[in-house]
Order: sequence, then C-alpha cells, then structure tokens
Amino acid sequence: MVIRPYGYAIWEAIQEYLNVKFKETGHSNMYFPQFIPYSFIEKEASHVEGFSPELALVTIGGGKELEEKLVVRPTSETIVNHMFTQWIHSYRDLPLMINQWANVTRWEMRTKPFIRTLEFLWQEGHTAHTTLEEAEKEALQMIDVYTKFAYEQAAIPVIAGRKSRVETFAGANRTYTIEAMMGDRKALQAGTSHNLGQNFSQAFGTQFTDENGQRQHVWQTSWAISTRFVGGIIMTHGDDTGLMLPPKLAPVQVVIVPIWKKADERTGVFNATSSVKDTLQAAGIKVKVDDSDQRTPGWKYNFWEMKGVPLRIEIGPRDVSSGTVVISRRDIPGKQGKVFGISMDCSILVAYVKGLLDEIQSCLLERATSFRDCNIVDVSSYDELKEAISEGKWARGPWSARDEDELKIKEETGATIRCFPFEQPQGTKSCLMTGSPAEEVAIFAKSY
Amino acid sequence: MVIRPYGYAIWEAIQEYLNVKFKETGHSNMYFPQFIPYSFIEKEASHVEGFSPELALVTIGGGKELEEKLVVRPTSETIVNHMFTQWIHSYRDLPLMINQWANVTRWEMRTKPFIRTLEFLWQEGHTAHTTLEEAEKEALQMIDVYTKFAYEQAAIPVIAGRKSRVETFAGANRTYTIEAMMGDRKALQAGTSHNLGQNFSQAFGTQFTDENGQRQHVWQTSWAISTRFVGGIIMTHGDDTGLMLPPKLAPVQVVIVPIWKKADERTGVFNATSSVKDTLQAAGIKVKVDDSDQRTPGWKYNFWEMKGVPLRIEIGPRDVSSGTVVISRRDIPGKQGKVFGISMDCSILVAYVKGLLDEIQSCLLERATSFRDCNIVDVSSYDELKEAISEGKWARGPWSARDEDELKIKEETGATIRCFPFEQPQGTKSCLMTGSPAEEVAIFAKSY
Repeated sequence: MVIRPYGYAIWEAIQEYLNVKFKETGHSNMYFPQFIPYSFIEKEASHVEGFSPELALVTIGGGKELEEKLVVRPTSETIVNHMFTQWIHSYRDLPLMINQWANVTRWEMRTKPFIRTLEFLWQEGHTAHTTLEEAEKEALQMIDVYTKFAYEQAAIPVIAGRKSRVETFAGANRTYTIEAMMGDRKALQAGTSHNLGQNFSQAFGTQFTDENGQRQHVWQTSWAISTRFVGGIIMTHGDDTGLMLPPKLAPVQVVIVPIWKKADERTGVFNATSSVKDTLQAAGIKVKVDDSDQRTPGWKYNFWEMKGVPLRIEIGPRDVSSGTVVISRRDIPGKQGKVFGISMDCSILVAYVKGLLDEIQSCLLERATSFRDCNIVDVSSYDELKEAISEGKWARGPWSARDEDELKIKEETGATIRCFPFEQPQGTKSCLMTGSPAEEVAIFAKSY
Repeated sequence: MVIRPYGYAIWEAIQEYLNVKFKETGHSNMYFPQFIPYSFIEKEASHVEGFSPELALVTIGGGKELEEKLVVRPTSETIVNHMFTQWIHSYRDLPLMINQWANVTRWEMRTKPFIRTLEFLWQEGHTAHTTLEEAEKEALQMIDVYTKFAYEQAAIPVIAGRKSRVETFAGANRTYTIEAMMGDRKALQAGTSHNLGQNFSQAFGTQFTDENGQRQHVWQTSWAISTRFVGGIIMTHGDDTGLMLPPKLAPVQVVIVPIWKKADERTGVFNATSSVKDTLQAAGIKVKVDDSDQRTPGWKYNFWEMKGVPLRIEIGPRDVSSGTVVISRRDIPGKQGKVFGISMDCSILVAYVKGLLDEIQSCLLERATSFRDCNIVDVSSYDELKEAISEGKWARGPWSARDEDELKIKEETGATIRCFPFEQPQGTKSCLMTGSPAEEVAIFAKSY
C-alpha cells in the first residue's frame, strides 16, 4: 500500500498529537533495527507461535546466503528485550520507557487498504518496571491515552476493555484494546496495550538488582497504534458521498471555492478569496483554495465532499458586493448544511468558522455514538447472540465460559469476543453460554 | 545500530527543521512500501549495477518461498516511478513533488555507528517535472536547503558542489553534494541531491502529455539526508572530552546542577534550581536538571560535558544567598568558559543564556570553518596532491582529466574527488594531472 499525501497528512496529525502525549507521560523516542535474528523470535514460546505464520524473512544479504535468517520486524518485543538486558542493571535504571515510530511487516493473505496491509506504520511503546503493579498501571494509562485520542481527536466512540485469553497478544498476560464500530458495523481493533508480565524478561533474562540486592526479572508493557487508525476514521465517519473527516485531524479544514462567470468578476472574487484565506490561516485554520480554471464549482464541491473537508466556503460576485460568504457543512448535506451571509469581517468570520468546526467535531462523535449504541444488543443466551450477530450487530452478554466455547462461537457465527469492556453493568449475571455465574459482560462482533 | 533517546532527539531536531523547509518549498510527505520487486530494480541499468551488491532480499513470506524476490529498499526511485506512471497523465499533474521519511537498508561490510550502517533513517525527496531546466533548478534548490541547514543549524561549514562522473549516484545525470570535514579531516558526504534526467522515466515509461498534446518523459530529481548527519555533527564538533552539540540541535541546551553539602542547604538550592529551570523552560530553552543524590557534582560535570550540552548552570548555597548562578560553556573548557554572578532575575538570566547559546552556535561554526580552511591545500600537480593527502589534508586543484586518472588517484592515495565546489577561483587553470586546460577545481580527500 502506498499512502498518498492526503492520507499521510491524517497520519501526521495522529503522530503530532500522540507524540506529545507520549512525552508528557515520560516516554522517549528511539529506534531499533528492523531486522531481528530468527533466534530472538523463537525465545518466547507463544510469541513465535503467534507470529511465525506472518513473517517475512531476509535470507540473502550483500549477495550471500545468510547463516541466520533475519525476520523483518512484525513487532519489536524481542529485539527490545535483547537491548534492555544490556541497559538495565539496577532498580535505578527503571522504569525504562521508550517509544518508536516505525514500519512493521506482517505477511497478510487478505489485505485491505489501511486496515490490514503487509507493511504498515505504527508507534510501538515498550516499558520495563520493577513491579507488576507498575506495569499494569502503565498498560492502563496508555490504553487511556488511546481512548481519549479516539474520542477527542478522531470522534470515534471506542469501547475500551480487556481482550479474552484467546484474543490476547502473543506473549502478553493481558491485552487492553479499544474497539471501534465501523459504518458497516464490523468491529475494528484500533489500538492495544499489553501487560507482558515477565514473559519476555524471563525468555531474554532481562533482570535488575532490587533495593535489597536481589536479582529480579523486569515487568513489561508494550502498546501500539498504527496507520490502521486512518482506515478507522474513514470507515467510521464516511458516507456514500465520500469521507467525512473530524476537524481536529482533517488535513484541510476549510476549502474555499471562488465562483465567477464574467472576466470582470474574477479579480474581485479572487481578491476576496485570498483575503478570506489569509484571515483564516492567520487564525491557525487549515485552508485550501481551489481556484483552478479547469473545473466547474459543482465539480469542486463534489470533489471536496468526497475528500471529507469539514467546511466549504463559496465566494461569488454577489458575496463580494455584500461582504459576506456562504458556508456549507460536510456533515449536513444539502440546503440544511448551508449558511448564507456570514460576514467576511475578520473577527466575525474566524469566530464563526471555529465555532462550526467545534460543532462538527462534536456532531460526528454524537452521531457515531448513537449509531454504535443502536447497534449493540444485550443478549442473555447463545440464541440471542446468534440473532444479533446475524443482523450484523454487536452482542453484549455475560460470559464466563471456556476458551473452547469462544472458539465455537467464532466458528459458528464469525464473531469473536472484542473485549470485556471496562464499563460493566451492575448486578449478578449468568453466562449466556453456560448459565453459570459470570462476573463480566463481553462484547461479541464480527471484525476486520 | 540502535539509536538511543539522546541521539534520536538530535535526529528529531533535524527532522523538525527540514520538514518545515520541505513543505515551504512545495513538497508533500507520503509513504511508499519498503519491499520492491527485484524486477523494478533491474529496469534502470546503472541503478541495478550500483545497488545490487548492497541488497537485502526477502525470499520467504508467510512461510512460503516467494516467486519473485523482494528487495528491502536501498532507495526508492524505482517504486516511486512505478507509481508515478499511474499518477502522471498530463502537464497539469506536474510538478509532482513528494518526500518520505523512512528507513533504508544497504548491506555494508564495514559499518560505523551513524556513518555507515546496514539500516539507516533518512528522508528521500522525489520530484517529476516537465523540463530539464525545472528539474535542475529543483536539484539545486534542495542542495541549497541542505547547505543552509548545515551552516545555520548544525554549524557545519560544508562545501557544496557537484560530484564527478565516477562518484555520481547510480541512475543520476548529476549529483550535487555537501561535503563536511570531520575532526580527523576525513570527508563526509552529508547530503546529496540528484538530477536524474529522464533515466528512470525512460526505464519505467513515466510520461505526460504536454500542452501540445505530445507524450514526453518527465524529468526527475531525488535528494536525501540521513541519520549519518548525526554522526557528522558528533565528529565535526566533538573533542577528547566528548560531544559538543550546536545549541540549535542540542536535545538539552542547558543542564542545571544543584550543589549542596548540608541537609539544610538542600531546600534552598532545590527551590532556586526549580525556579531557574521554570524560567528558562518558559522562554523555550531546553533544560535538564540533574538533581540525583547518587553522583557528585564533579561526576555530573564530566557526564554532561561528554554529552555535549552547550551550557551548564551551577547553583550552590552561596549562589542562593547572592541570587546569582555560575554558567559554564562547553565550548571553552576550564575557567575561561566560566561566568560567575549572573543574576537569577528572570529577564536578565533568559537574555544572558539566549545570548550565550547564540554565541556558542556562531563559535562552533567559526571554529569548524577555520579548521576546515587550515586543512585544505591548493595543489597544482599530482605530487602536491599526494603530499597533501598523505598529511591527512584535503587537496584542491584544477581537474579535467579522465575517469581512469581519478580511479588511479583513489588507488594510489585513497582519496576521491569529493566535489567540484560551486565556489570556484577565477582565472585560467591547468589540470593538476595532465596540464591541459581545466575549467574547474576539484576537491580530493579521503572519506568515510
């Protein structure tokens, strides 16, 4: 998959926000090699089992067959631990909290742009701590960073929770996830945070000397969000006309389309366009002017609607004489989304546009939240679950059954446990599968 | 090579500056896949010849032997052209100007941290134009961006010029370069910009319809700077005590070391330290406080000198009572670099520190420039050239001889033509090798 500038700009906006959050929470960026000796991958048993079907292997380098095959990183826990063993000596070296922005490779049979690609871009955080409690706190902190990002920046009302054992990351004790409902009601795992326990530190011998002089294995976490999230944004908010980007992540927040017919109208319209553009840009709004002579205004409207630009400003000769503009909202199609006669006066226009962008940001989140809530069904039996899934919905019900039962549901319905949500209903519950007491509800859904 | 946080922060500072410049000059970021089908690499004859000894090849994916080997990108001209053929139709699609930040792999036999590594990080710009002149202008513009960056940000007085035919990039018509003199007087190629002519567009059929309806091949450029530049900074400015980082790229510009002996001094010193830190940070200065109880002030001085932090501020009990601090410059060792009694008063301190940082930035550039100029010898014969090179210097002399002569010099002296500098002496010249008229001087040096 090639990521073209418009899509890459969304990824840059994601990076910009998260990079600040990662640093605020005490992490430093660094970079590990992407070629990992095969023997590293083999050290942690469940890790190699989980990843070996998906590996790309370098077997020839500099014209020669290599003695040891190199794995093109599918994730970096193994090489990170290899280095951590050399950097961590005492409790004073902990916590060690790092992050890298990198490309990773997983040999996917069925690819889908942004959602499932052979190579993708991501950030992967890796931390080492003196205690289990501290690692757990970190894993939860980072899924919380992702959750806030999804709600506040991407307007995606993800459900945060814990993965089932079956769905836990290969090598983790616990995986936390944010699950997003796409427009087709399939679930998208949009970010994960793992409490790795001591699995990798034991496999690699990543130890520290504690305050009592005892050698102990470190407790670790890892967490990641990838370019998949760009797909999540597209598939949450898009409609039949195209994308609908949340203003906070949109590469272009306002597109200005000048309209003129006669040559003598052109100068006036272009002057007004350029002054409106400067006004908005100076206020930190991302503006694009589409002033090409090649296309009609109608063609431009359709094009920028398809691109999901939140606001369109039209400026024609009549607007120039009245000193006003027409503004159209991408999220409300047709006349309802049009506002006429907004003054070009600098302070009025800026305040109005900023207000509208905030309102669109909220509306997208509200709309996605109500769509999500309409499509989650509370179920108390397997039959109800099957019905909900067959209708394309998510099923939420009490669960305390075995891994085998979970796999059977996957086989029979195509749905998996997306998570045990952090927000749980009160009261006693019986497992939808077995009728035994259940402590938690799980959410089942088909997924990407 | 693993890039740890301190080194990676230098790379981030480089990225931050260049990314803005690339966007200002009209380029958009995007991302191409790193696995390139082997057949793509074979399409441009000199390109495959240049790169084939250095390739890492993926031959197994998802557990299966691949039908076509995949090259882990050593550079992206081939895959870029493969995509450009699909995006470029008419002159209206041009110029197409993109950049990507990515990792690349070249199978190096002898590696050296930052300078020559099997995998490195870089940015690679790729552009397509309607005319040769436009491509040439772009290639020159980008080597100019690199030159300004080297002088103004990294305080490295690079020499910008044109590579000889022998040293031109595999697939380019012309390569422009910036060459930096390291502390050991070896040359480092620190950035390059290539006028690719129509070599790749002819190999890949990258064509556009011009204004007269004729099909033409596009004219292209590519240009890159890599993590090698971090090595260049270290090896230009370092001394026997360690690094000496230019303030504009230093991850830490000021380190504050609180000094106390008695417990009752501690609070006062720590309060002053924290207030000085806040003052500087609020002024946008990158500050680090080293307040650990584990190490002595002397140990900390040595450590942060080794790390190359431009300024150290010491705050002890006497400073607290006088309301002043002691500031030491990294670039002037010992007492000469120490200034006593600088007021802690917010506006005085900030102005003083900013002034010192600017002064250090200038001094590093001046020092490196004079070091460079002392170590370039003007030569008019091969004997003089050999003498200069054997003394470890750079030799500058008129050159119009054959490629074979250039290769002979390499064999006999270890030196290569680093560039024909843009800045040329006036007057008639005779080739140092052949005595024939020469239009230009070339610079010869041993290099990394």
